[in-house]
Amino acid sequence: MSTLRSWFNIPRGSHFSLANIPFGIISTTPYETPRVAVAIGDHVLDLEIFAANNGFSALSPIQPHQHVFSQPNLNAFAALGRPVHSVVRKYIQSVFADDTPYPEVLKTNSHLQKQAIYPLKEVKTHLPFKIGDYTDFYAGLNHAYNVGVLFRGPANALQPNFKHLPVGYHGRASSVVVSGTPIRRPNGQILENPSAEKKVPTFSPCRKLDIELELGAFVCKANNMGEPVPITEAEESLFGVVLMNDWSARDIQAWEYVPLGPFNSKNFGTTISAWVVLADALKPFLAKGLDNDTELLPYLKEKQTENIYDIKLQVNLKTKTGNSTTLSKTNSRNLLWSFPQMLTHHTITGCPMQVGDLLGSGTISGLEASERGSLLEQNYNGKSSIKLSGGEERKFLEDGDEITITGVCGTNEEALVGFGECSGRIEPALKL
Amino acid sequence: MSTLRSWFNIPRGSHFSLANIPFGIISTTPYETPRVAVAIGDHVLDLEIFAANNGFSALSPIQPHQHVFSQPNLNAFAALGRPVHSVVRKYIQSVFADDTPYPEVLKTNSHLQKQAIYPLKEVKTHLPFKIGDYTDFYAGLNHAYNVGVLFRGPANALQPNFKHLPVGYHGRASSVVVSGTPIRRPNGQILENPSAEKKVPTFSPCRKLDIELELGAFVCKANNMGEPVPITEAEESLFGVVLMNDWSARDIQAWEYVPLGPFNSKNFGTTISAWVVLADALKPFLAKGLDNDTELLPYLKEKQTENIYDIKLQVNLKTKTGNSTTLSKTNSRNLLWSFPQMLTHHTITGCPMQVGDLLGSGTISGLEASERGSLLEQNYNGKSSIKLSGGEERKFLEDGDEITITGVCGTNEEALVGFGECSGRIEPALKL
Ligand SMILES: [Ca+2]
Ligand SMILES: [Ca+2]
Ligand SMILES: [Mg+2]
Ligand SMILES: [Mg+2]
Ligand code: NI
Repeated sequence: MSTLRSWFNIPRGSHFSLANIPFGIISTTPYETPRVAVAIGDHVLDLEIFAANNGFSALSPIQPHQHVFSQPNLNAFAALGRPVHSVVRKYIQSVFADDTPYPEVLKTNSHLQKQAIYPLKEVKTHLPFKIGDYTDFYAGLNHAYNVGVLFRGPANALQPNFKHLPVGYHGRASSVVVSGTPIRRPNGQILENPSAEKKVPTFSPCRKLDIELELGAFVCKANNMGEPVPITEAEESLFGVVLMNDWSARDIQAWEYVPLGPFNSKNFGTTISAWVVLADALKPFLAKGLDNDTELLPYLKEKQTENIYDIKLQVNLKTKTGNSTTLSKTNSRNLLWSFPQMLTHHTITGCPMQVGDLLGSGTISGLEASERGSLLEQNYNGKSSIKLSGGEERKFLEDGDEITITGVCGTNEEALVGFGECSGRIEPALKL
Repeated sequence: MSTLRSWFNIPRGSHFSLANIPFGIISTTPYETPRVAVAIGDHVLDLEIFAANNGFSALSPIQPHQHVFSQPNLNAFAALGRPVHSVVRKYIQSVFADDTPYPEVLKTNSHLQKQAIYPLKEVKTHLPFKIGDYTDFYAGLNHAYNVGVLFRGPANALQPNFKHLPVGYHGRASSVVVSGTPIRRPNGQILENPSAEKKVPTFSPCRKLDIELELGAFVCKANNMGEPVPITEAEESLFGVVLMNDWSARDIQAWEYVPLGPFNSKNFGTTISAWVVLADALKPFLAKGLDNDTELLPYLKEKQTENIYDIKLQVNLKTKTGNSTTLSKTNSRNLLWSFPQMLTHHTITGCPMQVGDLLGSGTISGLEASERGSLLEQNYNGKSSIKLSGGEERKFLEDGDEITITGVCGTNEEALVGFGECSGRIEPALKL
């Protein structure tokens, strides 16, 4: 890919190059009303202010819809559909391009630059979507295998359905929060001695607080109840992608999850990154995912073999004392199912999706120990410890620990398509 | 309880006696905008029209909030809180009372009667709440036991956690629909031969389409993330109750549910009754539920021992040929956990609830075969057939079958507190 050059100062290595143009929700001081913006380099462009000052004067299709940029979430913009997202992104790229055909819009308009462009570090970011329903899938084969080995041994590690359909479950939408939101350690019922014959739970703060490194995808097109989204149309129902940390209380989960699956162990918080990278921006980074040696039912077969994003992912832990350690480096190619496959499977029953629904990929782990996306896998369910830089050790998360996930596509330092950060710090449990 | 007499004609045996006053969302022809109403006898009182014509002139606390009656859902009214629901209900009762202190409001105001009162059968009802998250619990001990026996045998029928906490899972909010909405039989992956060593699924319309007889409760008070709702405050967070049918695709469920629980088998539709009976109206019908011989952790202990609703429940099946059969008669006292216990357990992690969230009770079954709330239990997972009147038989639901759940509290035919109907008819699967 050739590099798009900009008249605007975009630092080398920025996640938010001109090749990206991710969308998010910001507020500023003193204008505290949340509204739509795009990130570019170390700055954001406030699209409400931009639109109100004729920023879109050269893009007629968006003009009847400019109110979408004054909304406190991306739902209305997303609902305009993939072709509109595409032209808006391309228009903003062209406005920022060195050889912009519309210099008067922003390049030579220092007044609007001052009004509508702010340093990233001075804006507050908000949850990008109003999320109706959130579904968490389990498409990370290596994670599912590693966890299966821990609990059922290698022979039965993967359940028989795993390669036939994208396993998933309904998650808790109300506790999805934007990067930077503190996460309070949950209280709940745990079994102190799981192997005791008589199972008597204890009430306790979670002692096995874990992370799950995932991607999240937002839906931009509703389907009517009773009308599945065919695999050929699933791609156009997906708006874009964020990084996601599905915080998990392993001890609460182990006790509660039979027979209906995880519940309280997952409902206390799920963190997503603030900037949604459009599916259009990610298209050049589609690649082959993990090989599925199983013959798929026709409704799940995609035409293209390159259906999984190639995103370099990293998980960092910073302790209260300030030590920072890279816990994991992996790649989102470690997924068995694509987001279009997840969406199509989800709706094959006629389940209605709404604009703003969130699909989680499932935990992404590579084959190596250094590539695992959860602590559970790294410490063999608490049997070993993870060494941190500075001499500390961890089995699971301690109070004050801060987890930061980053993700980036590409290698050209002037054309990265990255996600910024998805981070959260653990606060002590409430004393109840 | 003494009977409240009305100047208005409320038929004997009506679910919507003056002791009830349930709330719902209606629209009419030609005024098609959904808005708030209460049901009374065979009629509804349109609260938007009532409010706009000084109907609430003698109830000053509601006057600054009358806009809530013009909303397309009950969320804004519910958010006003239990004390407001209580005074509004009592005021409407007093307006309809024989000896009303405010005859000029409606009793002698035939103009407003004509404007604001419509026959129930002429209004269209809508989903009463905008539901953010829907959680389905599993508090019906007899159902859990019966299903456990089918799949794991009597010794392990109940999981060890069952009597320590209200087991639940996150459900799909977007497919909760109001009574009368058709339900399309889902397609999906099923195992034709579950006992074969090599598990290869078939794509098929669901062949084991089932019902689950449940109650649903709506939340009327939000809690902040990280701040649990203590059991002493849970009652005031609950607005009221509906009947619920958690349609279930047993064959899809059997294949998909390991290890994360039901997903597509439950996401194609959940039907609730249109009229929400206020918690206040149900208070006289609180009773003891099923005995729990397990010592509860303190956070789940309620002061009152009468914490479960005594609602007589019935499930009817009407086939395409018009034959109607009562499939089940039971009582909601067959629950091990109360709604306040479910809410408190749900939030003990800090999970944030929002106004309009829906909690399902889990399937309600009695001890006898004639009291079972799902077909699965009645037919021993398809091993026997259920005889219908008119000579037909059923294992699971066929296309054109219509299921109607009814529920009612009390025995005084002039003071019943009932739920009306929760019904849905099965449409043939899409040919894909
Ligand atoms: Ca997960
Ligand atoms: Ca259920
Ligand atoms: Mg989570
Ligand atoms: Mg359901
Ligand atoms: Ni600057």
